[in-house]
Amino acid sequence: MKSALSALARRTEEPPISWLMHVALAHPKLISLAAGFTDNPSLPVREVRELAREIFSSDKTGRPALQYGTTLGDPKLREATAQHLRRLDGAAAGNKTYSTNRVIITSGSQQLLYMTTEALCDTGDIVLVEDPTYFVYLGIAQSHGLRARGVRLEQDGLDLAHLESILESLQRSGELRRVKLLYLVSYFQNPTGITTSFAKKIGALKLLKKYERAAGHPIYLVEDAAYRELCFSTEMNGRDALPRVQADRQVGPTNGRMPGGDEKSALAARGFEDRVIYTGTYSKPFATGVRVGFGVLPEPVFTAVERIKGNHDFGTANLLQQILARAIVSGRYDRHGAVLRKRYAHKARAMRAALEKHFPPEVKWDLPGGGLYFWARLPSGMKSGVKSKVFRAALANDVLYVPGILCYADDPTRRKPDNEMRISFGSASEKNIREGIKRLGKVLKRFV
Amino acid sequence: MKSALSALARRTEEPPISWLMHVALAHPKLISLAAGFTDNPSLPVREVRELAREIFSSDKTGRPALQYGTTLGDPKLREATAQHLRRLDGAAAGNKTYSTNRVIITSGSQQLLYMTTEALCDTGDIVLVEDPTYFVYLGIAQSHGLRARGVRLEQDGLDLAHLESILESLQRSGELRRVKLLYLVSYFQNPTGITTSFAKKIGALKLLKKYERAAGHPIYLVEDAAYRELCFSTEMNGRDALPRVQADRQVGPTNGRMPGGDEKSALAARGFEDRVIYTGTYSKPFATGVRVGFGVLPEPVFTAVERIKGNHDFGTANLLQQILARAIVSGRYDRHGAVLRKRYAHKARAMRAALEKHFPPEVKWDLPGGGLYFWARLPSGMKSGVKSKVFRAALANDVLYVPGILCYADDPTRRKPDNEMRISFGSASEKNIREGIKRLGKVLKRFV
Repeated sequence: MKSALSALARRTEEPPISWLMHVALAHPKLISLAAGFTDNPSLPVREVRELAREIFSSDKTGRPALQYGTTLGDPKLREATAQHLRRLDGAAAGNKTYSTNRVIITSGSQQLLYMTTEALCDTGDIVLVEDPTYFVYLGIAQSHGLRARGVRLEQDGLDLAHLESILESLQRSGELRRVKLLYLVSYFQNPTGITTSFAKKIGALKLLKKYERAAGHPIYLVEDAAYRELCFSTEMNGRDALPRVQADRQVGPTNGRMPGGDEKSALAARGFEDRVIYTGTYSKPFATGVRVGFGVLPEPVFTAVERIKGNHDFGTANLLQQILARAIVSGRYDRHGAVLRKRYAHKARAMRAALEKHFPPEVKWDLPGGGLYFWARLPSGMKSGVKSKVFRAALANDVLYVPGILCYADDPTRRKPDNEMRISFGSASEKNIREGIKRLGKVLKRFV
Repeated sequence: MKSALSALARRTEEPPISWLMHVALAHPKLISLAAGFTDNPSLPVREVRELAREIFSSDKTGRPALQYGTTLGDPKLREATAQHLRRLDGAAAGNKTYSTNRVIITSGSQQLLYMTTEALCDTGDIVLVEDPTYFVYLGIAQSHGLRARGVRLEQDGLDLAHLESILESLQRSGELRRVKLLYLVSYFQNPTGITTSFAKKIGALKLLKKYERAAGHPIYLVEDAAYRELCFSTEMNGRDALPRVQADRQVGPTNGRMPGGDEKSALAARGFEDRVIYTGTYSKPFATGVRVGFGVLPEPVFTAVERIKGNHDFGTANLLQQILARAIVSGRYDRHGAVLRKRYAHKARAMRAALEKHFPPEVKWDLPGGGLYFWARLPSGMKSGVKSKVFRAALANDVLYVPGILCYADDPTRRKPDNEMRISFGSASEKNIREGIKRLGKVLKRFV
């Protein structure tokens, strides 16, 4: 007898992160520089204690936090989110792009990425992604039977010439009608740390628009801004901003200024409001256990996602939303964000120092201006994948990284690079960052 | 230019509940007996205040609540859930059906229903549902392009003869291979309040098994036990248990005993452990704003759902899980459940009294032994749908119910009954229950 599983279930693979977590559990002394977890000591325990005390001090505020809400989310949190984004983009108060009724609250931005993909993509459709990109998004795409094309990255984000050549080639092959979206992790990208400049976002939107006629339908820019608020440079007022070095992938000058957290989002691109799907999260800049994401969506995607969410869960837990709404309105959210940015800047500096000390010069790495990751490239031909000597030696020395190859889509037009690694300073302590990089450096020196 | 929406998005309709909520908002004086919201005054404000104070009294317990967890859920909550279900079913301590590693924690049981459907059903597949059934599940099925067959209900649940005739007819038409599951709201069903007896669950499992050979794959029983713990009869020790009356749909004697919350779940059916998918929720018996559901699943569905959840959100918010785990372990969950059951029993009695006083005798209704709903049937030919005179007159008199027709699947083999109504005592106050039923009774008397 066959299994009763659906085509979707049969396609859906074990996420690489699960495998890495099993590996970590099997090695109790392991230092994991692989996890996407956030910094533990800076989690806002005191703040949430205060927020909970306030919310549950009376039935008037306590009961709404314990009752069902609406599918779209708490009205106050939706409004605060619209204002928050408007402020981040420096937009005028009346700007309708940032109106509350375009905002939806979700269970992390991950859920919004899932629902957006459900709303737009049929099996066999093509998604354009950065090359490399966020591997859990690749999981969503793979599960839905989507094909992918990887757009190369430059120091300031998407390689627009490559994007255009992909669109052209898809037009020639008659496949442009299968292209529904370009997925862009726009700030301190997971995994590379690269930020796409506002100018390039506009460039990408123009290119997508240009090819819409041949596609026969809109092609959306899905901007995943998950790391936007984990920005070091702004926090440090440029004084001690981490400069990018060793930029061997750099293809041209960037006017002496790296794009950073102060780049505007694609929402600010005039005339493209109906083509931008923006996803963000309150989890990473506040507390990942208070899992709340949000999005700004144009019609008809907004209505489709609202209905789909009605079927998923008819609304994210109200308790989480009330905590966040109160954290934002009381100023605690912003204050904690400032603390967190300093903290991550500190940890990033610790990792940089360790990399400089322990990594062989043949291994190149970029300094991120925010986010949680360093991205390192081994010499060409020196593999870093899960079956490589480097990975196995790292494991034998109790240190774990994310093999870069896991972050590349199955794009038949190029071979996946297999000589990179994502190294996270998010959850490891400074001591473990130093020790982990030391161990990893030792391994790399052996094989260089 | 066409829209870029997927086939799923184009299929997905506005949920009826959204429309009803818009109606409610447009009528500020309206008494809604339609909402599936739970009782507001009994929400556990004090309990959650205490739980939050305990959790956030130290970094040791506070930080894990604010950090990411795992896709499957908090290990302690998974274990507590396994024990909770084992206890409810009166199973032995070592019974492997209730082992922790078969449990997954989700964002409400709704999310599990969604993911289970994704894991098992392809477009065009057939789901067997109760006739009538939970309308949000019909939304999931409709969104995924599934077809449905409605299985008639008797006083003690599924009409097994009808189930068999459906399976037979599908076998004859060669469509049995498209049947993946039977969806059963097993306790105090939404909308009818009917509980399916344990004997009938076994009967249904045997029938599904019998037709598996012809189907070529397992056919699962998805038991949605969302209302299991909202049981009056157990709470009241039979003393003042609400008897069922006016059972004009009753087809035979039930040995003088109505099935109730003490019926065993399908998990307890020996030899069928690998065919039962059990979904439950902590939201309704505790707090709907702390949205946590759970499931017990057999392989290979368990692994498929775990992977799918990895793509949805890679784990339900840890804060919610920690609150519930602590509520269960501390006994607060059980104590609150007892309070809640008394409260709903009280409200159900208030509604019964109002129905007896105000409804015309031609309108038949059953007394539920738990849950949140009464189900009433108007005389044949007297319509209750959204375009009916009754519905419009009710609205004009500021009272809202759920038209029964919304709870029937699009089953081409029968016409949808259009003379029923779901009336909820969940969220309305006793005063509004009395006044709402009075208004509705006045309307009904006019048209009878």
